[in-house]
Amino acid sequence: MKLEDCKVDGSKKFKLSDHPTSAKVPKAERPAYEAETAQNNKRMSDLQERLYADGREGVVILLQAMDAAGKDSTIAHVMSGVNPQGVGVTSFKVPSKVEAGHDYFWRANVALPQRGYIEIFNRSYYEDVLVVRVDGLWHGYDMPKRCLDMDEQEFFDMRFEQIRNYEKALYQNGYRLIKIMLNVSRKEQKERFLARIDEPAKNWKFSAGDLGPRSKWPQYMAAFEDAIGKTSTPESPWYVIPADQKWYARALVSELVVKVLEEINPQFPEISDEDRAVMMKCREQLMAE
Amino acid sequence: MKLEDCKVDGSKKFKLSDHPTSAKVPKAERPAYEAETAQNNKRMSDLQERLYADGREGVVILLQAMDAAGKDSTIAHVMSGVNPQGVGVTSFKVPSKVEAGHDYFWRANVALPQRGYIEIFNRSYYEDVLVVRVDGLWHGYDMPKRCLDMDEQEFFDMRFEQIRNYEKALYQNGYRLIKIMLNVSRKEQKERFLARIDEPAKNWKFSAGDLGPRSKWPQYMAAFEDAIGKTSTPESPWYVIPADQKWYARALVSELVVKVLEEINPQFPEISDEDRAVMMKCREQLMAE
Repeated sequence: MKLEDCKVDGSKKFKLSDHPTSAKVPKAERPAYEAETAQNNKRMSDLQERLYADGREGVVILLQAMDAAGKDSTIAHVMSGVNPQGVGVTSFKVPSKVEAGHDYFWRANVALPQRGYIEIFNRSYYEDVLVVRVDGLWHGYDMPKRCLDMDEQEFFDMRFEQIRNYEKALYQNGYRLIKIMLNVSRKEQKERFLARIDEPAKNWKFSAGDLGPRSKWPQYMAAFEDAIGKTSTPESPWYVIPADQKWYARALVSELVVKVLEEINPQFPEISDEDRAVMMKCREQLMAE
Repeated sequence: MKLEDCKVDGSKKFKLSDHPTSAKVPKAERPAYEAETAQNNKRMSDLQERLYADGREGVVILLQAMDAAGKDSTIAHVMSGVNPQGVGVTSFKVPSKVEAGHDYFWRANVALPQRGYIEIFNRSYYEDVLVVRVDGLWHGYDMPKRCLDMDEQEFFDMRFEQIRNYEKALYQNGYRLIKIMLNVSRKEQKERFLARIDEPAKNWKFSAGDLGPRSKWPQYMAAFEDAIGKTSTPESPWYVIPADQKWYARALVSELVVKVLEEINPQFPEISDEDRAVMMKCREQLMAE
């Protein structure tokens, strides 16, 4: 399985079931993939320095998934080693009262990185077409009638259009979005939940509420399918990454991030002849001390 | 001249020259218009309290104009008397380095009010299709080639589309935009500049740099015409307000704000029977003290 197989760019109808939750890589190959991740990590670190120095393009890495799919550990493993001065993480939890008082893009907008920076969105405004849809939360929104007086499909198709327009404008204004769904199976989630319950050091990661979304698995998969299918474009594709084998998922995600940074091809700013002359004067002055 | 005559909603081709800078109201009528503004002000104050209590709709009042057209004094006169707890003003000046590092909507997004609040934008992201266009600033942007490699009309048509999509999404998410151009004549601007130079108490309002945009008047008018023509929609119309007579402009602007708030028709939240019962219990408790 290749990274390109994970890509969804809107060129054909998207079916989530076409995307496996596991590439079933033999376990013996794990060390090779871990070495690949480490190598991508090093490459990423170099490219990030260039991105920062260049300052013309901002990068948002956006992670969506069911619980225990490996969002946090992917961030930890894939982005470690990159200079934290140029990389941030924003976690989108249940909206605060102030956040819920704004349009659903607002908190993502506030967290948008400057060009030259990378920001990782641990969840994102896509929550507003996933949990908000499955749990029917939108019916209770404090919004005027004109914003809510429609059926579910119409409401979320409107949001998908808003998202497409939003992401298009970001792209046109110097941003790249890397949209990743960590595609975990219901069976693998069960194993990971059990580990969180059985291993004391993992207890803190579990909450009884996690079983709620699990019980609505088909509804979530339908919401993911609709959202990914309708917000994938050539400029802002989704990547549906098989996540049952964490070490394999990390290798793919690190490959993806490197690929996008290489496409950006950031350059150290060129020094003008004038600036060069000034620098040379400074050099003389230092040498004369 | 009526408020409706100032409205631009995209239903027909917009020509700035169709919109006078003065309605030439006889000066004797000034007290009547000032009384009207005061009355609108009172009405606005009531409606704002309802808007705040209702909390379902946010309002942005966006002011664009040439220098000395009366933006600041309009804000002072029209919005005075409204509870400042529910009304804020954000002035958009030359972008800071952090602001310029983001997409041009970013600082406006950060300043977006919660639903239930009114925020006045003293200038806005429309600066990015006005001064940025007239002074050709976009050529020097730190953005990737794909964002800049086009001719001027193409670049700003792209921005107009971004703005239309942005404002449409805001409307769909419970916001109303009141977009106002204070349309002042070049002749009237000269008088006001001279007053700022000649009257010591007004000196602080003048800077020599103000003559720069004045010297490019036709280019600014062309940029305004293109921007207003291409971003006016039924949901987010522009209002081109004749601004040579300040007291008349204020009456129109206050009428406009009241009109939109009345359209929103905000309501005090209804108390449920349960909440009512709880309140009655509290009443008893207080009376028993």
